[in-house]
Amino acid sequence: MYSDNSITVLDSTLRDGAQGEGISFSLQDKLSIVQTLDELGVHYIEAGNPASNPKDADFFAAVRGVQIKGHSTKQTKLLLKHAELVAFGSTRRKDLTCDKDPQLQALLAADTPVVSIFGKSWLKQVKGILKADKQQNLDMIYESVKFLASNGRKVIFDAEHFFDGWKENGEYALKTLEAAIDGGASIITLCDTKGGSMPLDIYQSVVTVVRKMVRRAEIGIHTHDDAGLAVANSLMAVQAGASHVQGTLLGFGERAGNANLSAIMANLELKLGYTCLPEGKIEMLTPLCRRIAEITNISLNQGLPYIGANAFAHKAGMHSDAVAKDPAAYEHVKPETVGNERVILISEVSGRSAIIEKIRAIEPSLTKDSPEVAGIVKRVKELEKTGYQFEGAEGSFNLLVRKSLGSYKPFFHLEYYKVIGEQPEPGNPVTSFAQVKLSVNGEMIITAGEGDGPVHALDVALRSALEKFYPVVRTMHLTDYKVRVIDSRDATAAHVRVLVETTDGHNVWTTVGVSTDIIEASWLALVDSFEYKLISSGL
Amino acid sequence: MYSDNSITVLDSTLRDGAQGEGISFSLQDKLSIVQTLDELGVHYIEAGNPASNPKDADFFAAVRGVQIKGHSTKQTKLLLKHAELVAFGSTRRKDLTCDKDPQLQALLAADTPVVSIFGKSWLKQVKGILKADKQQNLDMIYESVKFLASNGRKVIFDAEHFFDGWKENGEYALKTLEAAIDGGASIITLCDTKGGSMPLDIYQSVVTVVRKMVRRAEIGIHTHDDAGLAVANSLMAVQAGASHVQGTLLGFGERAGNANLSAIMANLELKLGYTCLPEGKIEMLTPLCRRIAEITNISLNQGLPYIGANAFAHKAGMHSDAVAKDPAAYEHVKPETVGNERVILISEVSGRSAIIEKIRAIEPSLTKDSPEVAGIVKRVKELEKTGYQFEGAEGSFNLLVRKSLGSYKPFFHLEYYKVIGEQPEPGNPVTSFAQVKLSVNGEMIITAGEGDGPVHALDVALRSALEKFYPVVRTMHLTDYKVRVIDSRDATAAHVRVLVETTDGHNVWTTVGVSTDIIEASWLALVDSFEYKLISSGL
Repeated sequence: MYSDNSITVLDSTLRDGAQGEGISFSLQDKLSIVQTLDELGVHYIEAGNPASNPKDADFFAAVRGVQIKGHSTKQTKLLLKHAELVAFGSTRRKDLTCDKDPQLQALLAADTPVVSIFGKSWLKQVKGILKADKQQNLDMIYESVKFLASNGRKVIFDAEHFFDGWKENGEYALKTLEAAIDGGASIITLCDTKGGSMPLDIYQSVVTVVRKMVRRAEIGIHTHDDAGLAVANSLMAVQAGASHVQGTLLGFGERAGNANLSAIMANLELKLGYTCLPEGKIEMLTPLCRRIAEITNISLNQGLPYIGANAFAHKAGMHSDAVAKDPAAYEHVKPETVGNERVILISEVSGRSAIIEKIRAIEPSLTKDSPEVAGIVKRVKELEKTGYQFEGAEGSFNLLVRKSLGSYKPFFHLEYYKVIGEQPEPGNPVTSFAQVKLSVNGEMIITAGEGDGPVHALDVALRSALEKFYPVVRTMHLTDYKVRVIDSRDATAAHVRVLVETTDGHNVWTTVGVSTDIIEASWLALVDSFEYKLISSGL
Repeated sequence: MYSDNSITVLDSTLRDGAQGEGISFSLQDKLSIVQTLDELGVHYIEAGNPASNPKDADFFAAVRGVQIKGHSTKQTKLLLKHAELVAFGSTRRKDLTCDKDPQLQALLAADTPVVSIFGKSWLKQVKGILKADKQQNLDMIYESVKFLASNGRKVIFDAEHFFDGWKENGEYALKTLEAAIDGGASIITLCDTKGGSMPLDIYQSVVTVVRKMVRRAEIGIHTHDDAGLAVANSLMAVQAGASHVQGTLLGFGERAGNANLSAIMANLELKLGYTCLPEGKIEMLTPLCRRIAEITNISLNQGLPYIGANAFAHKAGMHSDAVAKDPAAYEHVKPETVGNERVILISEVSGRSAIIEKIRAIEPSLTKDSPEVAGIVKRVKELEKTGYQFEGAEGSFNLLVRKSLGSYKPFFHLEYYKVIGEQPEPGNPVTSFAQVKLSVNGEMIITAGEGDGPVHALDVALRSALEKFYPVVRTMHLTDYKVRVIDSRDATAAHVRVLVETTDGHNVWTTVGVSTDIIEASWLALVDSFEYKLISSGL
């Protein structure tokens, strides 16, 4: 277990990360995030607390292929390549036996290969919150772990407030770990629940714990960023002998957030010689992190280490020449190592190679020296300046490439659209009316649509116009609609970016539109979606 | 110098911080930031590079009371209570003597009590960038420091790339420090210029340097956050014997940013027993940090350690009861210690007790058993089921409580609103038109507005109607607008939640609206925002 440099990683974006302010995941978001984390190759995905949250129980059922009420799409069993799913809960209640404890029953019902339960290591809390005595708490830990392990689960024991307990009564804190190990826990996680510990203290505490527990269980670390030290504390614990790290990929979490796994994994792999992910996966860190931000519908802090848009951006006049002469002087790692790219903020020469790779995926005959490629890169850069982002909007990117190559001909010409909106009347969901006039091969058509909201009305009117010429659009329907305000300093007149996700039952594609007008941005994304479908159908 | 636990702090918000993307300071911004930093009580304020940036030279002139061309306000000499101003530059050019070097002359002309110059400690850069030999570089350092010191300046020497130089050729790196000390430098700062060093390495390097330099100069640390470790690396250096810390108060800076001084100072003072600021000043940390964010016109990351709006926010259902029973269980320091406050977020997983605490903050006479409280809790739960979320929408929550208590009377009655949208014409940003009819105290008013987008047009029309009766609404303007699609299975007809953030220059409040129609959701949030302002104004 301690014979090599491999570290197991547990991502808790869907459990502890969901406690972050402004974060809420739909069932579909959760499934998409699990798939993204699996693609990255983390070991464990802690996906929810089935006992405390009925929606989390729904999620675990959906994973097994169970049809969830209120969700129309057919569920199929989720298959993962790398990761194991983890359901989270706590030790049994003081006054119940394990087989009668509804919470442990919910954990078993989630039917995951791994379960993670927390228990108390801080004597003050054992007395004050549980109103239990020393032995009662140890029994709760031992019996709960044993119950889950004997039901075939791999058990991770999270020692809540471990470092506070360690300071108050280290002997008792260790006993709680031993109770879990005796019960059959595979991993013992030391939690800095309040996030206030200092790196040297963490290092010294973990050295001692690892020495005492040696070869009895894998030791893990779980930190929070309340003192701005979650990444450092995780690294110090690993250097002190821990071999399991918990956190959230983007640092989501309550208060100041959980430990940011993207920075931790990059530091462990690129700086300290440990292995966290399957070979080659660290190079996908940036795009996969950004995909998770898109699914969550949050703007990532541009200054995030390794993966932020500015992580390798150079502005200083004094530095810019030096960067050109020798990038290694101002970059601690090569940006490509983590799938990011250098940005020179004054002269826009960034990111060519990443775009070229995407273009060649659509049109393999092109090379990086083709003049068409230069034209596409230029167009992408222009659009990005106005707020477009093609990461996660592959449908629109595909159309852009085809338009630039001349292999695209428009399916229709828009004459105009108009939208009228009014405040709703009781009992009538219709609030918006749209009128669309367009021509197809010289033939003019005017249609109207109504709906609850302007985008709905526009979708109805556009679909009704196109159906006459292209019956295939009947198979499409929108599955997601996301709005992001860009540069929101002047809020109602700021640019908005709309992302639309569409499916035809077989494929799913995403398109993007940007405008100061939310209606126009939606219209542009809608049009791209219809056109992408028509092109993909070989029309 | 090493006899006590006091640490000197240098803030470089105006110099290194100004390299951050999206940050630019006017002359007045700079003066206001200097005054705020002085009020906080930092020791040194590094305020610009007079040789490389003419605006920085203007700033130093303005500080001395010189009238600056193009600035109408009368300058008076800036008087500081705690801090000393620092002008920043570099060692002399290889081919010039100090008295002929325009850069050193500009530093003297800035007329600050302290100057900070950087020089090279990494032999690779001495050869590759300066094209100088070992001795030439040592001479440049020694002579430049000596020249400035002999002109009466206290000199800080920033050893650029020190930790890279230390790895490559430690003996030479130390010689560069000795050259600066021999020249008369008071402080020698070890710079992790690329921001990629690991905490344990920093600790071991600084221990060695401090031992070798003992009592010859104060040793400082300057880190960047490229690996997410700038705060930790600064603390490790202090624990290894450094007594001077450089950074930027809010972590502004190039790439991933400079070391965040607000977190460093709080950790040093509250966790490690050092003193950075005059007594009692750490309690002003949060408000003064937020003032600097306001001056800079940026939104602070809400999850910032110690000072972020969410640094002490609690959401988890499982935790919220425990927090109420014993805040110390989930707070690493008391929020008041740093001038911040506890926030109980209202969310679908939060219990009754969290909502009750919020209600009592608005109406202290209520208890948890009051029938009004039960009514409010019920209403909140109902609204949450339809997609409302009051977490982060305190303005709307406040209105909801007042409405439930009967202490609210409407400021106007809406007759109707109508919105018309069309596709944009080239060169004309106006795409939307709104018409609003409402009555105030029986008086009917009808107004119209146009804008780029329907929400903008509605805001203009509503504001124009209300201004006539309530001139105070003129002080308000929207600062942020967020849209979230809830349960986006059926995308264009799904519920959308709109959050609107508004300021009147003193306060900031957020309101929420939910509807299947994005226009209606925006309208509801807008109306709440105006009503919240009117109620808060005592109308």
